[in-house]
Formats: sequence, structure tokens, C-alpha cells
Amino acid sequence: MSMSFKELMKVLGLGAVALVLGVEWLNWLMRRLRDSRGPLKEVLFFPSPQVCVEHLFIRHKHFPCACPLPHGVETSFSRLLVHLLSARMSLDLCVFSFSHMELSRAILLLHKWGVVVRVVTDRDYMTITGSQIGALRKAGICVRHEMSSAVHMHHKFALVDGRKLITGSLNWTLTAVQSNKENVMVTEEPELMGPYQQEFQKLWEANDPANHKPQCTNEQLNIKTCKDG
Amino acid sequence: MSMSFKELMKVLGLGAVALVLGVEWLNWLMRRLRDSRGPLKEVLFFPSPQVCVEHLFIRHKHFPCACPLPHGVETSFSRLLVHLLSARMSLDLCVFSFSHMELSRAILLLHKWGVVVRVVTDRDYMTITGSQIGALRKAGICVRHEMSSAVHMHHKFALVDGRKLITGSLNWTLTAVQSNKENVMVTEEPELMGPYQQEFQKLWEANDPANHKPQCTNEQLNIKTCKDG
Repeated sequence: MSMSFKELMKVLGLGAVALVLGVEWLNWLMRRLRDSRGPLKEVLFFPSPQVCVEHLFIRHKHFPCACPLPHGVETSFSRLLVHLLSARMSLDLCVFSFSHMELSRAILLLHKWGVVVRVVTDRDYMTITGSQIGALRKAGICVRHEMSSAVHMHHKFALVDGRKLITGSLNWTLTAVQSNKENVMVTEEPELMGPYQQEFQKLWEANDPANHKPQCTNEQLNIKTCKDG
Repeated sequence: MSMSFKELMKVLGLGAVALVLGVEWLNWLMRRLRDSRGPLKEVLFFPSPQVCVEHLFIRHKHFPCACPLPHGVETSFSRLLVHLLSARMSLDLCVFSFSHMELSRAILLLHKWGVVVRVVTDRDYMTITGSQIGALRKAGICVRHEMSSAVHMHHKFALVDGRKLITGSLNWTLTAVQSNKENVMVTEEPELMGPYQQEFQKLWEANDPANHKPQCTNEQLNIKTCKDG
């Protein structure tokens, strides 16, 4: 028994409607389930074992990674990467020391995807050996640093899409990730997220080179740090 | 018109009952109000301006403090002290660097009040100039340190009465409190508090000197660090 074209279209149309409704219903269910647990709260402890995180960077990879590290293992570091790479609109990063290559790769990738990345960092640690700040600036990412040389910008937090807070003791260095005892908390709790977002904005504006004396103009600092970093 | 003894006792009895009921009702109301806002969540940013915190240490002070610092001002640092001094049963502290005199005074006071204090700290930073770890040990507070010399115990968190988590970027030093850009979060959110309590227990047990080689027995380490600290 063959189906007429009209009948086929009817079945396909109904199928499409059912699919859309089903997906919407699933979404609603997921939201309800999530709301009942409250906003996201996740705690990560370090050191994190070394595993392959290549699949997190290359979204549609059809071949398996050939590196000698363990594959398909979730670690504190891979969770941190997942949260960072979940950014779709903006990433505000406030970090004392930033030399971790894979974290740098993640930030550069977000920038390439069109995510608006803003970085506030420490003045002294910006130019130490291995600092990734120069690489970020070269790629066109806006970086500001603590203006006072007597004060350390010691925060280690990130804000994903103005919604998700990532904060803790972890500097963005290989030693911190692979050796040290460290903690990172990830939360979408508005009461916690909000004050950090305000603090970021405050630091961003306070360290705008345009508001400071001519001996440290944005341009001069950019050139200097890009060369050093 | 004079009141008989029986009448007086009746009035006093009813008064006492009314007082107890009133206090209970107020308690219930406070709990309801608090529950509606969810568990405590507070974010503190540093540097914190220098103010007098003497009143936090001496509970029943009848004379005003004569020090030249501003009085009656609440700051991030005074809030941190209030939260620490709210401990009634236990304080578990995991801190990389500890040289702040007033924070040391707070911990020693808690110990004096009978609060069970346990401290895990970094091996290298334990004996640097100004470290308060020696003072804590001399007072009889249990201190353990990261056993490996290749690894930094970089956490900066405290657990008050197994209920309140205090965590952030802030080391317990004067520079951190008075100069640096730092953050501290205080929360009673069980989903955040729980993992930190487990991590503390893990570190406490992993760094038990009894489980390590004889060249670093508890006794030897205690003597060494007390002299140095």
C-alpha cells in the first residue's frame, strides 16, 4: 500500500510538530529539575591528573587523539575547561598569574569564536617568564593590569556570560593545576555571582589606562607587555 | 494596695512564660525570614581599610578603646573576624601563608574558649619570618603541614562549626588584608560547604605525621617549627 504525497506531508508535518513539542517539553522538564536543585554549584579540587583534553577544543573531531595521555577521563581540570569553554557571549577574567598553555588556548579560542574577553591581571606577574598575557594581547584581547606597583591583584576568578562564577585559590599556572593543593568553585548563585561581577567592573574601570598619567598610556603598556610577554 | 505573695508569684510566673514564648516566637520568625533568603551567602573584597576591631575580641568591654583608628566601622576584615569568632565548637583552617597578628589572636582566643582548632598549612611558608604557625603550636593548637616539599598547600579556606565555609584568594597576611585586591566568600550553602569539609578531612589524614617516615615525626617537626615560628 503506497502513501500519497499529501498523506506523506501530513505525517511529516505532524512528526515535526511532535518533535518540536517533545524537545520543548524535555527542556521544560530539565529546567524544572534544575530549578529544584537550585543554581549550579560545583567544587573542584586540585592537583588534577594529566589527561587528554583535546576533544574539548576540537568540537567535531572525527579521529581519535593519538597522544599518550589517558582519554575519556573527566578531571577537575577538564571540568574547569568545560565551564570556561561554555562561554557564548562574554568572559571576564581576573587572574594574578597566567602561564598555563591550555587555559591560554581556551581563552584564545573563545576570542576567535567572537566571545568578548576582558582580562584584569597583576602588574608584576604579567611579564614573568611563561606569562600568556602577551599572547592574549597579540591576539587582540583587551587586557588591563593593576596600576599600582605596590599592590597585587591577587584575585583568581572568571565570569562566564555574566552568569557563571568560577573562583578559588587556583592561579592559571601548570604548577597550580598539576601539583598544588587548590580549590575552585563554580556557581550560578546570583547572590555570589553578582558581587564578583561588580568587583570586576570596578577593577576594569579603575585600571583603565586612559584615566592614568601619560607615562603609562595604554599604547605604551601594550607595546611593552606584548614584547615582554 | 499591696499584692499578696501568691499574687506576686502568679504575675512573675506568667511573665516568665510570656517571655519564653516571646523569645521562641522571635526565634521562629528569624528562622523563617532567614530560610526564605536561603543559606548565608556573603562576599567580602579586600583591601580592607584599617579600623579598630578591639570590640570583637573583648566581649564585655565597658570602656571605649583609646586607639587612634576609626571606631564603630564595619569593614571586610571586621566581617571576616566576626565570622571566625562565631565558632563555638570547631574551626578547621587550611591556609597557605599565615602571618596576620589579629587573625592569629582570633584563633588563639577560639582555642582558649575551648573551640577545637585544626590547622593545615604549607610546609615552606610555615617557617618564614612572621609566620604565626609557631605561636599556634606553642598554645597547643594541632597544626599539620603538607608533607611533600615539592607541593604547595595553596588553599585559603576555613570551616566554622562544620557549617560555615570561608574561602577565597586571601592569604592570612597583613599585605593581603590591607593592600592586595582579594576576595573572600562566606557561605552556609551545604552543597559548597560539604566538599570543602571532605577535602579538609582528606588533607588532615594524609598529612598525619604518624603515617610518615621517622625522619619527619610529629615531635621533631613540632620542635623545629615552634623554634622557627
